[in-house]
Amino acid sequence: MFAPVYLDHNATTPLDPTVREAMLPYLDARFGNPSSRHEYGRQARSAIDAARAQVAASLGAHSTEVIFTSGGSEANNLFLKGAAAVMKPATVAISQIEHPCVREPARQLARGGWRIEALPVNADGVIAMPAFDEVMAQRPRLVSVMLANNETGVVEPVSDLAKRARAVGAWFHTDAVQALGKLELDFRALGVNAMTVSSHKIYGPLGAGALIVDKRVELAPLISGGGQERGLRSGTENVAAIVGFGVACELAAQRWQEEAQRQAVLRDEVETGLVTLGARIFSADAPRLPGTSFFAFEAIDGETLVGKLDRAGFACASGSACSSADPEPSKTLIAMGVAPEMARGAVRVSVGRGTRTEETRRFIDVLREEVRKLREMTAMAV
Amino acid sequence: MFAPVYLDHNATTPLDPTVREAMLPYLDARFGNPSSRHEYGRQARSAIDAARAQVAASLGAHSTEVIFTSGGSEANNLFLKGAAAVMKPATVAISQIEHPCVREPARQLARGGWRIEALPVNADGVIAMPAFDEVMAQRPRLVSVMLANNETGVVEPVSDLAKRARAVGAWFHTDAVQALGKLELDFRALGVNAMTVSSHKIYGPLGAGALIVDKRVELAPLISGGGQERGLRSGTENVAAIVGFGVACELAAQRWQEEAQRQAVLRDEVETGLVTLGARIFSADAPRLPGTSFFAFEAIDGETLVGKLDRAGFACASGSACSSADPEPSKTLIAMGVAPEMARGAVRVSVGRGTRTEETRRFIDVLREEVRKLREMTAMAV
Repeated sequence: MFAPVYLDHNATTPLDPTVREAMLPYLDARFGNPSSRHEYGRQARSAIDAARAQVAASLGAHSTEVIFTSGGSEANNLFLKGAAAVMKPATVAISQIEHPCVREPARQLARGGWRIEALPVNADGVIAMPAFDEVMAQRPRLVSVMLANNETGVVEPVSDLAKRARAVGAWFHTDAVQALGKLELDFRALGVNAMTVSSHKIYGPLGAGALIVDKRVELAPLISGGGQERGLRSGTENVAAIVGFGVACELAAQRWQEEAQRQAVLRDEVETGLVTLGARIFSADAPRLPGTSFFAFEAIDGETLVGKLDRAGFACASGSACSSADPEPSKTLIAMGVAPEMARGAVRVSVGRGTRTEETRRFIDVLREEVRKLREMTAMAV
Repeated sequence: MFAPVYLDHNATTPLDPTVREAMLPYLDARFGNPSSRHEYGRQARSAIDAARAQVAASLGAHSTEVIFTSGGSEANNLFLKGAAAVMKPATVAISQIEHPCVREPARQLARGGWRIEALPVNADGVIAMPAFDEVMAQRPRLVSVMLANNETGVVEPVSDLAKRARAVGAWFHTDAVQALGKLELDFRALGVNAMTVSSHKIYGPLGAGALIVDKRVELAPLISGGGQERGLRSGTENVAAIVGFGVACELAAQRWQEEAQRQAVLRDEVETGLVTLGARIFSADAPRLPGTSFFAFEAIDGETLVGKLDRAGFACASGSACSSADPEPSKTLIAMGVAPEMARGAVRVSVGRGTRTEETRRFIDVLREEVRKLREMTAMAV
């Protein structure tokens, strides 16, 4: 089978073989419904309990703070809509660089009478501090700022932001989907009230995620019914996916540090090559995830370049992976003040556990060739 | 491994080996995010397209009418909350025997100013007709009546009810989770506006379900963000689960008729045995699913009996499987006018594709013995 080199780990990750092994019995003889009060049900229930303990331990949270969901989008929606549902309409503050699954729920709240305040970022993509405090002075009830951006990889100073937000009485949520497995992550130490994590970004299966939420936060469920997840997320639990998520969290906690060092070396080498080819690297001077590089070449369209790379055997992303269908330039880059023409050139490379040095070196060679050909075409067109 | 006889197929079903085979590549090399515009993404996207076509074809619907969700509870919530979100508060009518994942969303609507009307059932558990029409005369905007009850197995006259509801301008939804794979199911022929189905009740994986919805019905998403499922259900699609669901639907369409006949024979033999032992069989005279039997013995607690059967190697359910944690007697039986003492005795046996005659015969033998012992204990206590 033709297997292109995968350089799109921020979009999704392959399943770790250890995770797959742990899941398979639950796609076979251990098929019970965790709510059933017989041997099959008890097996499933105890598998979920064990996974909950793994997720909690790896994140510095308590088991009772873990609400399993179908993934990160659901967890982000659950926090924003669930918390708003038990409040009177007030102000919700979100950064300008949030994922659509934070931005869109906030817009839905606005239709219900909430006021949205945008928290701007500076040219590096980091939350702009005087502006943040000005918004906090308006005493928002809900604040959501992602821990690491999916496109630039910028790591936001969430611990500090959460402290300032909590000081004015807000509930502070962070979307930590891209951060988990790539940097140290401790719910208690971070000082947030709620945090979203996702399985399929950390070599776990699709179909599982969690909202980690401290017990002072009152939430209404998005999905109500059978009362699973302490009534906050009804529906028969996806046992195999949750089991896989638990193991994936445990592996992430064991491996993140060594992997972060290894991936940073790969990424730095890629970026040395990119700079030689004349690329502009976004957020190069900001604190970033170790394996993410977001860049553009002047006058070269990002979609076109990604298409050429795809045909040459390299899978990477243009703009934001989760919304590649969106023809608009990256909202993150626009928020950073990047010109739309330049933003349309954006390409993202995100290395992962499986990425090897020879692959990233070959990537730079192929990129050199594709950029040369595209520049020739542009020159001819001019 | 100790493998008890599984007689709880209405709670969940084992994965069909054909379904598992179809899923495994998507837990391995085909791990892409369907939104990614490269080879891995295209593989995943085309797998979802194929599954959508399988689900649609097996249900007599069009592919564009299939909204994949994480399961049946989410689909039921999506219909009720999603339709209500784009309307002014009005009346929602649901039957007295709906699953909690219809009942609870309706209650949440009531907190938002909606009026709930309960559609009563007769002593057999069938929707009571003059009462239904009286509620329709109040012109509800939303009506939800399940196609087959998870406990009694009663099949409701949904086609007729939908016609009456539509005549007064209501959107009619049916929870067909228990019906799929057990009787003929055609979305168009049924004449409903929306229908919920679930994968794990038809030998497919947990983590997938769908709301089938005709395009006249406007819905707001429960989970908003990346815009997947035509903007009605954001979040990276659970590719492996959706692939499995597609195959499971196809198998259900191929096999339901033969299986229905086979299971009816098993169920009838079980019920002959039950009657001999003095059980009362609920809804015995109503149209029912072929493989479900819901019964009670006077003065024997259902939970206790299910516990004894579990230890004797038979997995069955007491009350409703999805809410066995609920100590209350079955709401379905109470709605049918069954005395609470009798309702507390309820035990459900649901046979499935894997159930063999020798197993159900052995079940009756073991049941005879357990009932005898429990009656002796009761006699001694008196």
